[in-house]
Amino acid sequence: MKKVAVIMGSDSDLGVMQGAVDYLRRFGIPYQVRVISAHRTPAAAETFAAHAAENGFGVIIAGAGKAAHLGGVLAAYTTLPVIGVPIQTSMMGGLDSLLSMVQMPSGIPVATVAVNGAANAAILAAQMLALEDNTLTQKLAAFKAEMAEGVAAKDERISAQFTE
Amino acid sequence: MKKVAVIMGSDSDLGVMQGAVDYLRRFGIPYQVRVISAHRTPAAAETFAAHAAENGFGVIIAGAGKAAHLGGVLAAYTTLPVIGVPIQTSMMGGLDSLLSMVQMPSGIPVATVAVNGAANAAILAAQMLALEDNTLTQKLAAFKAEMAEGVAAKDERISAQFTE
Amino acid sequence: MKKVAVIMGSDSDLGVMQGAVDYLRRFGIPYQVRVISAHRTPAAAETFAAHAAENGFGVIIAGAGKAAHLGGVLAAYTTLPVIGVPIQTSMMGGLDSLLSMVQMPSGIPVATVAVNGAANAAILAAQMLALEDNTLTQKLAAFKAEMAEGVAAKDERISAQFTE
Amino acid sequence: MKKVAVIMGSDSDLGVMQGAVDYLRRFGIPYQVRVISAHRTPAAAETFAAHAAENGFGVIIAGAGKAAHLGGVLAAYTTLPVIGVPIQTSMMGGLDSLLSMVQMPSGIPVATVAVNGAANAAILAAQMLALEDNTLTQKLAAFKAEMAEGVAAKDERISAQFTE
Amino acid sequence: MKKVAVIMGSDSDLGVMQGAVDYLRRFGIPYQVRVISAHRTPAAAETFAAHAAENGFGVIIAGAGKAAHLGGVLAAYTTLPVIGVPIQTSMMGGLDSLLSMVQMPSGIPVATVAVNGAANAAILAAQMLALEDNTLTQKLAAFKAEMAEGVAAKDERISAQFTE
Amino acid sequence: MKKVAVIMGSDSDLGVMQGAVDYLRRFGIPYQVRVISAHRTPAAAETFAAHAAENGFGVIIAGAGKAAHLGGVLAAYTTLPVIGVPIQTSMMGGLDSLLSMVQMPSGIPVATVAVNGAANAAILAAQMLALEDNTLTQKLAAFKAEMAEGVAAKDERISAQFTE
Amino acid sequence: MKKVAVIMGSDSDLGVMQGAVDYLRRFGIPYQVRVISAHRTPAAAETFAAHAAENGFGVIIAGAGKAAHLGGVLAAYTTLPVIGVPIQTSMMGGLDSLLSMVQMPSGIPVATVAVNGAANAAILAAQMLALEDNTLTQKLAAFKAEMAEGVAAKDERISAQFTE
Amino acid sequence: MKKVAVIMGSDSDLGVMQGAVDYLRRFGIPYQVRVISAHRTPAAAETFAAHAAENGFGVIIAGAGKAAHLGGVLAAYTTLPVIGVPIQTSMMGGLDSLLSMVQMPSGIPVATVAVNGAANAAILAAQMLALEDNTLTQKLAAFKAEMAEGVAAKDERISAQFTE
Repeated sequence: MKKVAVIMGSDSDLGVMQGAVDYLRRFGIPYQVRVISAHRTPAAAETFAAHAAENGFGVIIAGAGKAAHLGGVLAAYTTLPVIGVPIQTSMMGGLDSLLSMVQMPSGIPVATVAVNGAANAAILAAQMLALEDNTLTQKLAAFKAEMAEGVAAKDERISAQFTE
Repeated sequence: MKKVAVIMGSDSDLGVMQGAVDYLRRFGIPYQVRVISAHRTPAAAETFAAHAAENGFGVIIAGAGKAAHLGGVLAAYTTLPVIGVPIQTSMMGGLDSLLSMVQMPSGIPVATVAVNGAANAAILAAQMLALEDNTLTQKLAAFKAEMAEGVAAKDERISAQFTE
Repeated sequence: MKKVAVIMGSDSDLGVMQGAVDYLRRFGIPYQVRVISAHRTPAAAETFAAHAAENGFGVIIAGAGKAAHLGGVLAAYTTLPVIGVPIQTSMMGGLDSLLSMVQMPSGIPVATVAVNGAANAAILAAQMLALEDNTLTQKLAAFKAEMAEGVAAKDERISAQFTE
Repeated sequence: MKKVAVIMGSDSDLGVMQGAVDYLRRFGIPYQVRVISAHRTPAAAETFAAHAAENGFGVIIAGAGKAAHLGGVLAAYTTLPVIGVPIQTSMMGGLDSLLSMVQMPSGIPVATVAVNGAANAAILAAQMLALEDNTLTQKLAAFKAEMAEGVAAKDERISAQFTE
Repeated sequence: MKKVAVIMGSDSDLGVMQGAVDYLRRFGIPYQVRVISAHRTPAAAETFAAHAAENGFGVIIAGAGKAAHLGGVLAAYTTLPVIGVPIQTSMMGGLDSLLSMVQMPSGIPVATVAVNGAANAAILAAQMLALEDNTLTQKLAAFKAEMAEGVAAKDERISAQFTE
Repeated sequence: MKKVAVIMGSDSDLGVMQGAVDYLRRFGIPYQVRVISAHRTPAAAETFAAHAAENGFGVIIAGAGKAAHLGGVLAAYTTLPVIGVPIQTSMMGGLDSLLSMVQMPSGIPVATVAVNGAANAAILAAQMLALEDNTLTQKLAAFKAEMAEGVAAKDERISAQFTE
Repeated sequence: MKKVAVIMGSDSDLGVMQGAVDYLRRFGIPYQVRVISAHRTPAAAETFAAHAAENGFGVIIAGAGKAAHLGGVLAAYTTLPVIGVPIQTSMMGGLDSLLSMVQMPSGIPVATVAVNGAANAAILAAQMLALEDNTLTQKLAAFKAEMAEGVAAKDERISAQFTE
Repeated sequence: MKKVAVIMGSDSDLGVMQGAVDYLRRFGIPYQVRVISAHRTPAAAETFAAHAAENGFGVIIAGAGKAAHLGGVLAAYTTLPVIGVPIQTSMMGGLDSLLSMVQMPSGIPVATVAVNGAANAAILAAQMLALEDNTLTQKLAAFKAEMAEGVAAKDERISAQFTE
């Protein structure tokens, strides 16, 4: 299976991006975690993105905050799908990170998920890889069913608790 | 090749979503265009999404405005990747559409692109389908090169015009 | 009397939505509390909403956060009035939840109250049910008078304290 | 049947609020249209709200813009449900009107619909009155079906147009 | 000298509004503190405002949060200048309170100060009363000079500390 | 009577600030109109503000847009009340102007009215001057009554038009 | 004298960025205009920035809109000062462009001016180059004086026009 | 070498502005720290700015919060480049400070960095002074290399930690 790259702009984003790692592990998807800054190590960003496909990566997840250029910079050098995770900041809860990621110009998309939505980035990556992988599709379906059961269990418990 | 669905919540979104159709055509990706409202025809949304995979779809693009639930509603019924296009509104330029799409809860991602970013939705869909399709990858690379040439041509022209 | 449904998208919303339960109890309105996710258990949402009227419900209160589709999804399947409670988030204090709830398209209203305004959702539900229930109208009038007395008492105390 | 009041803060809001009148007519609900300003004719607001119930009104719709206090001022004097329609302004598309209406303090709800959502205000009023009126419930169900058919017709037309 | 009224919509605003009281005391301006809710005790608001001038008040300071109608409701019933203090909330730091106060329609101004700016409300009230009161003008000038000296002292201390 | 200064940061603000002039004329208040820029003619701003009181001014109205410092700069040099009129811009409808005016630090208030609220600035100035001027108070009361009559007339006309 | 680069992300930004060119001409500063896209021609951005200093540039002005990464990408490859001009968009008047430019992480500043503030970008560049250029300093001082005279002339004209 | 002034509007900004001092020290740039308030000590602001160039300053860094006029007021009196540091506030994370600084009118730029971006202000000042100072240019290049190495070291460590 193709690998997923989990790239963060700063090691301070690790707490959030761990959520992506957890889900990739859960789905048995090979991954690599990197700290690459669009502004401090731009050459590393270029090198990584330009060679990601040939190095066996299928999807790139990029987490960054504030003027979050990481997703766009990576997307500039590859045709692999790039998923952006805006990291929460003190500027309107991360609106700066969100707008900096999602408002990409025509031609270079970044698939943006919710602020701090690292788990969803991994699930989205799994959905992409599952397009040609039935086993992964089944894992995703099982995960979806499990989520539904989890909500149903809470529904039962809380519904009962509030019935008099 | 798997098909891409281009679904809009209202036919008034057609002007924007045409941008997705144009790029799917350009890349030779089979597609279907639908008008399905998360709120007015919820059963159609469920039916479409629940059977999209078996009906040959690989990616779903959903364009909607205001309280833009369409992407989330479709994603609730499928494990295919769903791409959301927030439609511009008079409420802060479409911030309502954007937040309604991108801020999905953990477990059900919607890959959100820029407000009115229908072209990028199609390109993103192509990037996903290209994961297992070398011809499409080459088309994407050619498109990227063509964009770069287009900018370079403008650069040359404007740079020359402003040189004295 | 018709029942009021208090539905939350996640059990983490219980702390806020308890405010609705408290007021329904206070007014002696029968209610049921449910955990139903628009995205994780969409079938449960459809089933509940489609049969709410025949199951004796008169009003549905839906509390959800972020891309808060719950109110809209329920409203899609019923003609009962649906009241939305946007849950506070770290994204501009819940502006994402608010816009996702209130900006519904024409034809499918969600009666939205303040962020975390669960108490007001219950009072609004009571006001609706009181349209044909004089006893409930009297309870609402008594509650209004009690609130006024509460403010007047505080006014007296603080006004006195700051008089020299 | 109880009447619905359609109150606007300024006659310049008539263009928007006409949308509520149209839907009330469609559902055969008796209504009265008034121009009452929370700030310029506060006594009229008080008089109207304090006597609305005894004058045969069941629901009050209030449309206002900017520091849109009208809904709250009316709600202060009645226990009837008050529906607020925030009018679009040049301040972030009407965010001022929306927040001034929806962020009501505990105890005095205003059921807020989308910016310029006058049609939905009328539909919501109809849903409230339909709680004890089967004919109105049937009209609402028919309207919902008609909307679905309208979307389905557009779906068919557009889907066909884009099939090659 | 005419009195200044310090009115808050809820006793939970006392911590902020104390800042106004402190400055009124400092300038020797007679004042009265009241808790009056635009929505819970609207009659008290009307009574107070309608008789404020004849009761010896010259300026009214109104502090309120969220859908902060208090200033506007008071201004509707008097021609005395009304100063609004938007109270900080969790909704974008009090943007709801600010817009609900400052965006008043033409004809009924509310003189709005910063979020939680109770001190400035008192100073502004003093500036108004000083228009015909030379002693108060001198106190304001002295206060201004004292502030300048305070900053100058800090300037000297910090400037020295950072000189090497 | 003391004069009111109407100061604008740019002659492009004249269209908006004319609204203040119109109301000052209406109330028979002497005024002077000036174009003074906080940034381009700071010395003129200082000179004007520092001598405004001795030159017979009682209130200063300052209209400015974007980083609207004019009100604050004038207030820094006088103890006269300064009223700020934020001019509408393309940045969120003038949120930049509004926040730059209203969020003044403790000690130096600017009495801020609505975006483009020049008329209200003049009315507020009249309210301040009326504190010691019964004739002006009567003019303000008459204006308030006239506004109420205007709304009542519109109410009558529209209410009649929509009665069937 | 060192040259100033005026770089825009798209030729559609030329209308705005012309404002920078006009002021550079006025101050007699040599300049070059380029169209370089951070995302479409990233290699050109790297090449330009990495060699800007040795090619005789002293300051780089970068104008871009939406997810405006251009300034940051250039700044990543040079230690020359980079000035960012956020281009106005339909997303809250360009808040996306502004935040994407100004919220740079520690270590890589972009000196950001107002939305569409191309003229100020050129003036700022001139101020930087004037640090070691007395002639340019004098031109800036003359420009400042001329601006002041322009405002004073308008002040005189409008002040006279409104004197009766 | 020319000096850099680090001016803060209030000593409460010292915690943030210390970040600028640290970097100026690091680069061996002479500096002076001052507390000058645009509103409380406007004469000090004018005096400082008007004589900054002749007193040996090359760049002015101004940190201020809320209605942050300090940068603009200083820029009004000098042609030296002024760098603005918006201080974080509770109003949308400092959007008030940011807009008050960055949205300067044409003719008087303030080079604005990120909210609380004092370090970047110092680096930007160093970049300006380095235009004619090769030693400083080399220090900036060394700093850039050091940052890159720091990120690379974290990349290596985290990449290794997450490799299995």
